[in-house]
Amino acid sequence: MNSTLRESGQDRQIRELSEFLAIPSVSALPAHAADCRRAAEWLRDHLHQLGCPTVDMLEGPGHPVVWGEGPQVPGKPTLLIYGHYDVQPPDPLDEWISPPFSPTVRDGKLYARGASDDKGQVFCLLKAYQAVLDRGGRPPLNVHFIFEGEEECGGTVIYELLKREPERTRADAALVCDMSYYAPGVPAVYTALRGLCYAEISVRTLQRDLHSGTYGGVAPNAIETLARILCALKSETGEIRIPGLYEAVEPPTQAELDTWKRLPFDREGFIRSEVTGKVLTGLQDRTVFERVWALPTFEIHGIRGGFVGEGAKTVIPAQATAKVSLRLVPGNQVQEVGRALKRAVAQAAPKWADVEVNLLHGGDPVQVDVSTPAFEVLDEAFESVTGRKAVQVRAGGSIPIVPELGLAGAPVILTGIGLPDDGLHSPNEKLDLAQLWSGVEIFSRFFRLFAEKGGSARAYSSSGEARFTGPE
Amino acid sequence: MNSTLRESGQDRQIRELSEFLAIPSVSALPAHAADCRRAAEWLRDHLHQLGCPTVDMLEGPGHPVVWGEGPQVPGKPTLLIYGHYDVQPPDPLDEWISPPFSPTVRDGKLYARGASDDKGQVFCLLKAYQAVLDRGGRPPLNVHFIFEGEEECGGTVIYELLKREPERTRADAALVCDMSYYAPGVPAVYTALRGLCYAEISVRTLQRDLHSGTYGGVAPNAIETLARILCALKSETGEIRIPGLYEAVEPPTQAELDTWKRLPFDREGFIRSEVTGKVLTGLQDRTVFERVWALPTFEIHGIRGGFVGEGAKTVIPAQATAKVSLRLVPGNQVQEVGRALKRAVAQAAPKWADVEVNLLHGGDPVQVDVSTPAFEVLDEAFESVTGRKAVQVRAGGSIPIVPELGLAGAPVILTGIGLPDDGLHSPNEKLDLAQLWSGVEIFSRFFRLFAEKGGSARAYSSSGEARFTGPE
Repeated sequence: MNSTLRESGQDRQIRELSEFLAIPSVSALPAHAADCRRAAEWLRDHLHQLGCPTVDMLEGPGHPVVWGEGPQVPGKPTLLIYGHYDVQPPDPLDEWISPPFSPTVRDGKLYARGASDDKGQVFCLLKAYQAVLDRGGRPPLNVHFIFEGEEECGGTVIYELLKREPERTRADAALVCDMSYYAPGVPAVYTALRGLCYAEISVRTLQRDLHSGTYGGVAPNAIETLARILCALKSETGEIRIPGLYEAVEPPTQAELDTWKRLPFDREGFIRSEVTGKVLTGLQDRTVFERVWALPTFEIHGIRGGFVGEGAKTVIPAQATAKVSLRLVPGNQVQEVGRALKRAVAQAAPKWADVEVNLLHGGDPVQVDVSTPAFEVLDEAFESVTGRKAVQVRAGGSIPIVPELGLAGAPVILTGIGLPDDGLHSPNEKLDLAQLWSGVEIFSRFFRLFAEKGGSARAYSSSGEARFTGPE
Repeated sequence: MNSTLRESGQDRQIRELSEFLAIPSVSALPAHAADCRRAAEWLRDHLHQLGCPTVDMLEGPGHPVVWGEGPQVPGKPTLLIYGHYDVQPPDPLDEWISPPFSPTVRDGKLYARGASDDKGQVFCLLKAYQAVLDRGGRPPLNVHFIFEGEEECGGTVIYELLKREPERTRADAALVCDMSYYAPGVPAVYTALRGLCYAEISVRTLQRDLHSGTYGGVAPNAIETLARILCALKSETGEIRIPGLYEAVEPPTQAELDTWKRLPFDREGFIRSEVTGKVLTGLQDRTVFERVWALPTFEIHGIRGGFVGEGAKTVIPAQATAKVSLRLVPGNQVQEVGRALKRAVAQAAPKWADVEVNLLHGGDPVQVDVSTPAFEVLDEAFESVTGRKAVQVRAGGSIPIVPELGLAGAPVILTGIGLPDDGLHSPNEKLDLAQLWSGVEIFSRFFRLFAEKGGSARAYSSSGEARFTGPE
């Protein structure tokens, strides 16, 4: 294939991916429900084009799950490929250089909401499968696709589906390609994911807003009350004040700590280019890796109360609300942490305030045993394209579906082609196109290698050993 | 006049006032600039109907001042009547029982934004003047009307006007009818107003929002940082931590403290019906009157940061903003307090956060000498209609124009026909119609009495004694 033709193939792929990215499938916003369906339909149509004889839209009380099965290849292993077509809300909109749903290439990178999380990675797997088909005609393995539309909003459709039809998770391995390299040139596989306990804290101190002239000095202020509760939940030095939270944590193994010590890490560059702040906060006696991978966190995601329009309204606000979450690590259990959060808020709140904690969604943390054959095959694929095996790291983020995908015993491979500066959940999210092109090569090679060697995993899993040692 | 005719006159007045109240003249919101002008024009037309030979719309860099002069009555004293036609923003809209700009009578009360603050009170004075004219044909005194449209937003039009043309404040007294009775049946005159220092505090800890999974545990959170700054500015027991603030306060006189002790005050009813909370906060070793009239306050009016939409976005916010203000009392100076606030925020803020304090508007506190003849006349008017003289109290709120109105030496009378539960700046603001009807009687009597006896005030003021002993 000459270079011109190859480039034109890439242009076509960028156009296809841009079409997918242009659909504002923001699952958290009811106004975008139809867009979520359009994104699901885009995947359905694409699976048909890939020659899948079975493609279904599986409905539930929310956005549909897209299910696809490649042609049956008897005697060959089965790979379950998971991804999600929904995206995070794009705000703050004014910080995007190009609009979030107008995919734009700048300097070899494709900018759009969902470019890396997760549409771009889903697209990479589809194109890797296509490349395998282009090479051999008949696929060398069984592939099942399961794409959901509620990963970013904590919906229940895929959970209810897998509870009802657990046989869909019967596979020799499940591949979740929603992660990133550890660093440019350093592919990664993930041994643990943090869990999540997401809540809304609402405070009411008055029946109505008051004039701060008339009542300032005696009327309880809902924003002040909420601010004090939030400050009480975490010390200035980063210690979360929720009883039992740290006590439950299973510390990382010595092997993990040793691996993390050897990882290349440019602290100043991390602060400047990734965090984009001036400092790293949190528990200063723990390493950065421990803080983002192996310890729970408490973050305030949003706050609202009183008058936030233009100008100067002198009101004592009657109510205020904050969205918060705890990231959980192995040892923490989401149900227990939710109850402990409620108790801690109740204790921090003054008696005269009406305070509610509404648990919105969550999931337990996850640990993955990476000693099974599928991971060897993945290492081989990475090494053949990038020159190095995947480093074994943890992820600070959460993918609540992961334990469910492993319920039938398949090892769940957590990996991906993102880069750490992709800006997930942030303005100007991007996918490095070089990662996409090499990712297609890596995964098409993985599919071929897994077709030859992946079958052993099922034998392994059928012994009944649990792949997930997380608390769920 | 028989009862039926009298009622039909009141109905007509309610219709007229409702027309005025239906204009959403929210001065703080640029989208309502044309509505502010419509409210000014409504007043202009009304002054024409009252037979004012001079009516002007005085323009400046904002909403116009409406100026009116009644027919000249040589040898008679001049009364300057101040009011404002702009209103506070109506949000939170969903707490209004009837929409804020659809005036509605329920149970003898007229509900609308501005019903009491200040359109209803302006209307009361216009109708009182009308009643004087109806009685005698030719007015018994000189009346100058000055109505502004920026009282609620800190605009500069009236200030620039009075700086340019200070002769407009030459009068024997200025009447500011923007206040309330101390309690139902207990009219009040005000000896002091608190000043105001209004600011926006903005915090930025990151260049962009981050994913709380990837960076939770090490990235500085702008909302958390802002919450800690806000909590640092005031202790949990209500003490404002701004150096010099309390030290500057001139304590109330023993006479004031004695008067306040004798005022009827139902603490439980105040908490339940007015504050609508469960407790009174603030400095517990000071009386309620000291806390709302004679001490500075620090209030958070609004806060915004991160994701506040529906659902669960797991973002570490890069920035957050709060609107705050300090109420000031005699002894405090707005310029000095603004500087002290900036220093206190800078001290409370961590070095790694970019924190800005933007002073939006403010005014010095005011003290009024109520020993001049105009106040005796007002007492006589109140007594003849309500059976009792006005009690001398302070106001917790601010009317920044008051010192300017007294610049030429006129005593400034601060009084009004509102009631404490009118809900100024709150949802379901109302005017008790019984207060309106008795107010028309009180002020028409005041105008006639002032015509006879008010001239002496000018002689008094011409001695050069300052009526305002506030810090300005």
